[in-house]
Amino acid sequence: MDPRDIDIICKYADIIQIGARNMQNFRLLQEVGKTDKPIVLKRGLSATILDLLMSAEYIASEGNRKIILCERGIRTFETATRNTMDISAAPVLKQLTHLPVIIDPSHGVGKWDLVAPMSKASIAAGADGLIIEVHQSPEDALCDGPQSLKPTKFDVLMKELKKVAEAVGRSM
Amino acid sequence: MDPRDIDIICKYADIIQIGARNMQNFRLLQEVGKTDKPIVLKRGLSATILDLLMSAEYIASEGNRKIILCERGIRTFETATRNTMDISAAPVLKQLTHLPVIIDPSHGVGKWDLVAPMSKASIAAGADGLIIEVHQSPEDALCDGPQSLKPTKFDVLMKELKKVAEAVGRSM
Amino acid sequence: MDPRDIDIICKYADIIQIGARNMQNFRLLQEVGKTDKPIVLKRGLSATILDLLMSAEYIASEGNRKIILCERGIRTFETATRNTMDISAAPVLKQLTHLPVIIDPSHGVGKWDLVAPMSKASIAAGADGLIIEVHQSPEDALCDGPQSLKPTKFDVLMKELKKVAEAVGRSM
Amino acid sequence: MDPRDIDIICKYADIIQIGARNMQNFRLLQEVGKTDKPIVLKRGLSATILDLLMSAEYIASEGNRKIILCERGIRTFETATRNTMDISAAPVLKQLTHLPVIIDPSHGVGKWDLVAPMSKASIAAGADGLIIEVHQSPEDALCDGPQSLKPTKFDVLMKELKKVAEAVGRSM
Repeated sequence: MDPRDIDIICKYADIIQIGARNMQNFRLLQEVGKTDKPIVLKRGLSATILDLLMSAEYIASEGNRKIILCERGIRTFETATRNTMDISAAPVLKQLTHLPVIIDPSHGVGKWDLVAPMSKASIAAGADGLIIEVHQSPEDALCDGPQSLKPTKFDVLMKELKKVAEAVGRSM
Repeated sequence: MDPRDIDIICKYADIIQIGARNMQNFRLLQEVGKTDKPIVLKRGLSATILDLLMSAEYIASEGNRKIILCERGIRTFETATRNTMDISAAPVLKQLTHLPVIIDPSHGVGKWDLVAPMSKASIAAGADGLIIEVHQSPEDALCDGPQSLKPTKFDVLMKELKKVAEAVGRSM
Repeated sequence: MDPRDIDIICKYADIIQIGARNMQNFRLLQEVGKTDKPIVLKRGLSATILDLLMSAEYIASEGNRKIILCERGIRTFETATRNTMDISAAPVLKQLTHLPVIIDPSHGVGKWDLVAPMSKASIAAGADGLIIEVHQSPEDALCDGPQSLKPTKFDVLMKELKKVAEAVGRSM
Repeated sequence: MDPRDIDIICKYADIIQIGARNMQNFRLLQEVGKTDKPIVLKRGLSATILDLLMSAEYIASEGNRKIILCERGIRTFETATRNTMDISAAPVLKQLTHLPVIIDPSHGVGKWDLVAPMSKASIAAGADGLIIEVHQSPEDALCDGPQSLKPTKFDVLMKELKKVAEAVGRSM
């Protein structure tokens, strides 16, 4: 994605997502800040929580306050998971800002069989939403197959998440 | 703690805890492996999950299989929290071993007002237990005061955790 | 910098530098790959050496092979320096590619009084060049003042670097 | 190594080395602090420079001031090398303390063909010494073979290091 694509994207998309590798693409942030679309801003692989908020400022400074912050795992020395999910980012961000905070456990751990426990943990920690990758046939996916749930497993997970949400006083 | 202290410790303690900074103190691991006390083995600040399991082997190899693994936060570039809690360690370890896995959110985040959400997240992710620091008067604590809960807050948290545990099919 | 700026930049600049935060701005990499200017590609704050080479491929795939790789420090848990300079990146990259490799000790350590020893270390390790920040009056600099050398100190350093270069069989 | 071994070690060894994994084994540090042997204190895999100095204090507080600090690489996300050598630790430590600072490039990078450039870089940055692993037959080594130099290569390296040392005003 690049500033020249924004007009065509705005014509079709309901939400614009700024990927982790573009979190500090400041010109792009300013351009989406001029639109009136909600923006999902994903935390960079080695961005601190403060860095993420400073990037959100680039969007807000152009007038667009519809910003959704997204934790998706940070880069650490651990190799058992694709990234290390910093779930504490959710309660920390909720203390620092009024913006909604969502979590992407699929990228965070990178393995489908860890997505369910990490989704529950995210909701229990206070996240306002989740991005979960689902694929009809993960083994045939061109990318991110190993972290994708099949629809039936997603269905089960949603029912389980509803219970966790209620346990922490939220509804789904 | 050092191998020379083990006799006196075993006389009074019900459980022996190996702190994060001693996770690769292999001689100490071997010595506690010769006792019949349950051992809480805390993950080192920059230990991988595999490193943690290899350290557990030093205990088990001497005959003591009563090992409780404990995630307590790893060292990353993030400075908003004392450490970065790797909650995914719980489901990953549960896949790799039959040992119980507990989490220490107090050291993990280092701030009392994040202990409640991170405790809930830990239970939701499948942890078998928690270590939570409680102090009558945290502001007077000689160490770890900022991460300690007052008894009344701990009481409230326990009630909330019961609900989360039930939501994921566990009981407390 | 953004793809729309490239024409005007090419009119005036001899070399185009892609900053660390843009190392994975793939559209920008492709655009500069269509020019015939030498490109300095700086390693991202948490980019592996492999990531850096993969980013260089985006430039090369569009036809521009005049790529200069630049190590400028990575993000770690250490706080004594602005970043942790990974000097080993120079010999590792020289083994993996024929591209010239330069090092930026000013950003790498972020403190002017460490720039001289780290510059010498870089040349001794086989780097083909250095980027050193110099400012007439660092205390008045709008940015990066603390890591800038005054011209007289730079002058002394260049003489010292000449000796180190000769000691490892290079000339300046 | 453990406090109970110190008497026998002192009988035969000229220098006691505290390995990286024991850098925060505080009881052991205190015990070696009671001896009059020089102590090589290796930086832990994820110890900050400040952590290293605080560990040195445990030795010094018992009366032994013959402490040699040793950088041997820290744990980061990079996987191209065994560890990431933080060469800046040498000039930083020289600013903060009067203690000698040595570097261990063999463990730092973990690959024999990177030992020569990183040794030169270490001396150029102001290190007071090096630990270099040498083995007659690295392919048969029980451990650390891939990072060991053969004697003939070590011989060549020493001659090259002499030149670098002279270039920065030191002698060997």
